[in-house]
Amino acid sequence: MSHNSFGKLFRVTTWGESHGLAIGCVIDGTPPLLELTEADIQPWLDRRRPGTSRFVTQRKETDQVRILSGTYEGQTTGTPISLLIENVDQRSKDYSAIAETFRPGHADYTYHSKYGIRDPRGGGRSSARETACRVAAGAVARQVLGPSITIRGALRRIGEHGVEDADWDWDAVGGNAFNCPNEAMAAVWEDYLDGIRKAGSSVGAVIEVHASGVPSGWGAPVYGKLDGDLAAAMMSINAVKGVEIGAGFGAANLRGEDAADEMLPGNDGPNFSANHNGGVLGGISSGQDIVVRFVVKATSSILIPRRSVDKTGAATEVVTKGRHDPCVGIRAVPVGEAMMACILADHMLRHRAQMGA
Amino acid sequence: MSHNSFGKLFRVTTWGESHGLAIGCVIDGTPPLLELTEADIQPWLDRRRPGTSRFVTQRKETDQVRILSGTYEGQTTGTPISLLIENVDQRSKDYSAIAETFRPGHADYTYHSKYGIRDPRGGGRSSARETACRVAAGAVARQVLGPSITIRGALRRIGEHGVEDADWDWDAVGGNAFNCPNEAMAAVWEDYLDGIRKAGSSVGAVIEVHASGVPSGWGAPVYGKLDGDLAAAMMSINAVKGVEIGAGFGAANLRGEDAADEMLPGNDGPNFSANHNGGVLGGISSGQDIVVRFVVKATSSILIPRRSVDKTGAATEVVTKGRHDPCVGIRAVPVGEAMMACILADHMLRHRAQMGA
Amino acid sequence: MSHNSFGKLFRVTTWGESHGLAIGCVIDGTPPLLELTEADIQPWLDRRRPGTSRFVTQRKETDQVRILSGTYEGQTTGTPISLLIENVDQRSKDYSAIAETFRPGHADYTYHSKYGIRDPRGGGRSSARETACRVAAGAVARQVLGPSITIRGALRRIGEHGVEDADWDWDAVGGNAFNCPNEAMAAVWEDYLDGIRKAGSSVGAVIEVHASGVPSGWGAPVYGKLDGDLAAAMMSINAVKGVEIGAGFGAANLRGEDAADEMLPGNDGPNFSANHNGGVLGGISSGQDIVVRFVVKATSSILIPRRSVDKTGAATEVVTKGRHDPCVGIRAVPVGEAMMACILADHMLRHRAQMGA
Amino acid sequence: MSHNSFGKLFRVTTWGESHGLAIGCVIDGTPPLLELTEADIQPWLDRRRPGTSRFVTQRKETDQVRILSGTYEGQTTGTPISLLIENVDQRSKDYSAIAETFRPGHADYTYHSKYGIRDPRGGGRSSARETACRVAAGAVARQVLGPSITIRGALRRIGEHGVEDADWDWDAVGGNAFNCPNEAMAAVWEDYLDGIRKAGSSVGAVIEVHASGVPSGWGAPVYGKLDGDLAAAMMSINAVKGVEIGAGFGAANLRGEDAADEMLPGNDGPNFSANHNGGVLGGISSGQDIVVRFVVKATSSILIPRRSVDKTGAATEVVTKGRHDPCVGIRAVPVGEAMMACILADHMLRHRAQMGA
Repeated sequence: MSHNSFGKLFRVTTWGESHGLAIGCVIDGTPPLLELTEADIQPWLDRRRPGTSRFVTQRKETDQVRILSGTYEGQTTGTPISLLIENVDQRSKDYSAIAETFRPGHADYTYHSKYGIRDPRGGGRSSARETACRVAAGAVARQVLGPSITIRGALRRIGEHGVEDADWDWDAVGGNAFNCPNEAMAAVWEDYLDGIRKAGSSVGAVIEVHASGVPSGWGAPVYGKLDGDLAAAMMSINAVKGVEIGAGFGAANLRGEDAADEMLPGNDGPNFSANHNGGVLGGISSGQDIVVRFVVKATSSILIPRRSVDKTGAATEVVTKGRHDPCVGIRAVPVGEAMMACILADHMLRHRAQMGA
Repeated sequence: MSHNSFGKLFRVTTWGESHGLAIGCVIDGTPPLLELTEADIQPWLDRRRPGTSRFVTQRKETDQVRILSGTYEGQTTGTPISLLIENVDQRSKDYSAIAETFRPGHADYTYHSKYGIRDPRGGGRSSARETACRVAAGAVARQVLGPSITIRGALRRIGEHGVEDADWDWDAVGGNAFNCPNEAMAAVWEDYLDGIRKAGSSVGAVIEVHASGVPSGWGAPVYGKLDGDLAAAMMSINAVKGVEIGAGFGAANLRGEDAADEMLPGNDGPNFSANHNGGVLGGISSGQDIVVRFVVKATSSILIPRRSVDKTGAATEVVTKGRHDPCVGIRAVPVGEAMMACILADHMLRHRAQMGA
Repeated sequence: MSHNSFGKLFRVTTWGESHGLAIGCVIDGTPPLLELTEADIQPWLDRRRPGTSRFVTQRKETDQVRILSGTYEGQTTGTPISLLIENVDQRSKDYSAIAETFRPGHADYTYHSKYGIRDPRGGGRSSARETACRVAAGAVARQVLGPSITIRGALRRIGEHGVEDADWDWDAVGGNAFNCPNEAMAAVWEDYLDGIRKAGSSVGAVIEVHASGVPSGWGAPVYGKLDGDLAAAMMSINAVKGVEIGAGFGAANLRGEDAADEMLPGNDGPNFSANHNGGVLGGISSGQDIVVRFVVKATSSILIPRRSVDKTGAATEVVTKGRHDPCVGIRAVPVGEAMMACILADHMLRHRAQMGA
Repeated sequence: MSHNSFGKLFRVTTWGESHGLAIGCVIDGTPPLLELTEADIQPWLDRRRPGTSRFVTQRKETDQVRILSGTYEGQTTGTPISLLIENVDQRSKDYSAIAETFRPGHADYTYHSKYGIRDPRGGGRSSARETACRVAAGAVARQVLGPSITIRGALRRIGEHGVEDADWDWDAVGGNAFNCPNEAMAAVWEDYLDGIRKAGSSVGAVIEVHASGVPSGWGAPVYGKLDGDLAAAMMSINAVKGVEIGAGFGAANLRGEDAADEMLPGNDGPNFSANHNGGVLGGISSGQDIVVRFVVKATSSILIPRRSVDKTGAATEVVTKGRHDPCVGIRAVPVGEAMMACILADHMLRHRAQMGA
């Protein structure tokens, strides 16, 4: 058991605080002889990096990753891969005022309540900075999965403005500041978020991640379900309050004749009439796309004062000064992809352990 | 690693197929000197049991539990508790026709795809019958948690008919056939489900589970989050397609000033202005009620024929004969409660391992 | 984590007390489509069973195993295999006197000290009866390993009388009451143990287990070492006080030029000049025979009175009445074989998870 | 599951190759509010460090440890502790010749056989350099255990020269180059090892580690036994071929009346007439000293040529040039102590998880 690890066979352990010397992770169980250098990881980190538009925090982090172990001459050796990212933007003074105060909606109070101590600099361990390690691990997971599996994420919704299936265009995702799969909606979001940002507020979002090319048969009953592990993985991302597979909560309204994706003769396994089950049946992949959705709440680090208490229990007020993030969901897209990649890599290894191929 | 276990320190391993000789579970890690006899477990099983109204399957299972180990003179000894429930209604003939066919929306195809073999009798391992073991384990978990923690579940929604917060009445839950927290809505559901049942169809549902009395501080960053474990636990229940904590997917629409539950001075820890976070901040309990919601899809075992394929890949049609379950969500309520109890018992032990009390 | 489980991918959880209703185990992770019926397990249990000669306890246990789940029409399905052995010789009265007393050399005191409660009937969970579950699991593990791997055990030593390598004859093992690999030594042991038995005493023994046909490459650095897991597995058997691989403690006296088994060109991997390393180098199998030895102490359930204390801490005397076991090591041979089989099956699955074959 | 982690609740994951950029470990599960700075760890590393006498390798490693995470203002925060030790003596050229050759008695062949690739520089992951991480983790474990538990190790035997119990003097251990608990024997060893060193050879050794002050009740049946975990931990140390608890293999010769340590009334739990069981009964600590012994084989990195094969399978000869280690067991003493500390810290947390204190 480890509070800071996930995965069973492709196992990732992360460590580090937002404003400590460094953050990093150790990845154990990777098969040998895979190509892996820093150049395979850095692009994914660059995509997650803060400071790339006015809609995400302007914190300056270069997030340069170094591989400290587990490779030899550009290939994995099967031994643990240690990745290290130094913290360069350690402006601890910005956070000194909050050391005595619990920010509402953050983990300040619960960490203090549990441990009796917390690293107040930038949220310490509870900072979203930790997700850089997930993205780095996800890059390694993609090497494990190989080119036949494609993992893509996009922002499905910001506040009340969501993209419908009919308007979904994967090719649009890279062309705007929001990971938005629809150009017109990206323009709507731009105005919308500018308004929220100027109001000193923030708003929630829904992220959707697809994995294509996953063969049928990955996963396991009953507590090793692929969707169970995906649910835990996505829920473990900062600020996530819900996870769906396939039709998700929409399944409440579906009749049995609609919820059951019909099977039709196909060339390589059955064809399905729909994908309400999000590519998972009984915890095992069906060969359809794996479709996961998760919701990220609005950050409470906003310019609008909120009531709170300090360490002594006395009433106080908390307000964030300077830069703030109007929609943290934007940066959660590559994180969601990374978690999908890690969970799939883990289940790929778990599947062949039991099945032999 | 075990595909059929969950929990780290309060650890439950279940086994058994729907129409095998028996089902059961082994519970490891239970503290000693807790009162535990079959009488502490049986009432919870009775509540989950099929055949108690016309809205749930009429399969006859007495679900009598026997404690085979781990207690002495009515007390737990700290050694593994083995629970056994014999299968008495093994009408295998009902299912013989489907041995060669994959039921759409069920795990038939994915099990076959993974293992090359499946127990076709009543769904085998993928049957909802497995959830009886969860309920039994949940009863043991309640003994671990003690009387200061209350776990309650109810049906929040059936199809398009949901109960609003303002109409919620915990006392109503036991007074109808639906675990419905509102008497008027129960009447609506009765008509609604009768219609669905007569149409040979089925519909989905949303279950909500609350835990009161959980102290602040349970859970852990980052992959040992209380809500991450709850998400996996609920998603592992048959037919579940989504899990929410607190505001859940509704958090997408909330502004930062609304999503952050404000903290106010209180007598025993802070008071909170609301509970949008469902009692969990940063993966650690805040002292508020833990609030989890999950959606159960409509069963595809219906009287309406659906297209499918057989083992050879050829087209066929599947239709359920005789009794069927118009809303499997009804029986999922005690299962959701049990999973909540098990996860909390596990985190109680995990918390005191690290913190000493 | 589970105190009562071992193995990572071929995972065995045992439960049950010596004089409870039954004992049993759940085996998770077994590949599907292996032949498995009770007839594959029962012969191994029969070999371990008490009451087969005057040198082992005369307790009457038929040890009939039943498979409750995980197979269909004589084949494994990949789901958990639940095995149950009912306890038929529950002569609890024999043990009633010791409920208040701690038997020296037994776990009575430490269980009481830890749990504040213990099942005093026949040693409860600490009874060697638990090893029947290991033997049953070992039979399943042999099916996983297949016919190319041979696992054999024998008694290397009883008290001061040991069998030398030069006198070792595997074919002799089945021909005497001691699992002795040398007929002449079996005769010596017969006299020797008769003397010890008549003196009301007991003596220790050393068991040796070999596995042939294990390919090179199983195991892993650094805490997943094959020999590390074997050490834990053997040490977990009742009354074991030491475990060796290859030359074992004899390696203390070896010079570097002798301890290093030289490698010579071979047809299928290298040939080795010797096997001082017991088939394991750096935690990974070398293709040589895996050779493990462990020591079992003399049971303290003897006819000679020993000083002890009771629950109140007051001085008392303990003496075993009736039947006793002059050398519990004899029955440990099939248990050691079973643990070897289980650990190898686990590492076979672990190896192919990472390596793909 | 992780091949490179050990412990369940006090969980250590190590990474790094002998001649890579760095080695390190991540320690998860440490309670908060413990004093911890580099000054608490460095002295233990200094004791293990090479190059401190002519009897150990002259490799120059300063082994300076840095704490990268998990502490704040000199105290643990309960989050993962990342420790890093940079490799400064990366003389890769010394080892370049062996990249194509398998050193007999080393893991070269088995790593190659498993992974198809290995880092040949200084043994890569299989190097004893990895044990520095164990020692660092052990220092953290000692902080967890607190001052009431004392862990001490010594060299019991080198080759044929062993220290008897009657001659054992803990105070002598620090006064010689061998961790020898007897001054006269240290002088014998000095001559003896000089001879072996000059002959270009090496020899094995036995290390003994004691833990005093461990309360009764730590550990668990049946596969969570304290001695089972200690056996795995010690066997996982490089070159170890056997592990004993208490009387160990000597228990083979003991009669039941001698093997059973009698219990006598005591002030704080019973007194025992002896400690043949090494402080563990039924896998649970008895309150007596925990006594563990393990054997380290002679290194095969010697000046005497040995036959081997190269990657193509062709015959070759291997001989170590320059400095060599006549008895690697000397440096294994602090490693054995560290493993004892880690296992005890883990069981301390495991005990209070289930028992509540």
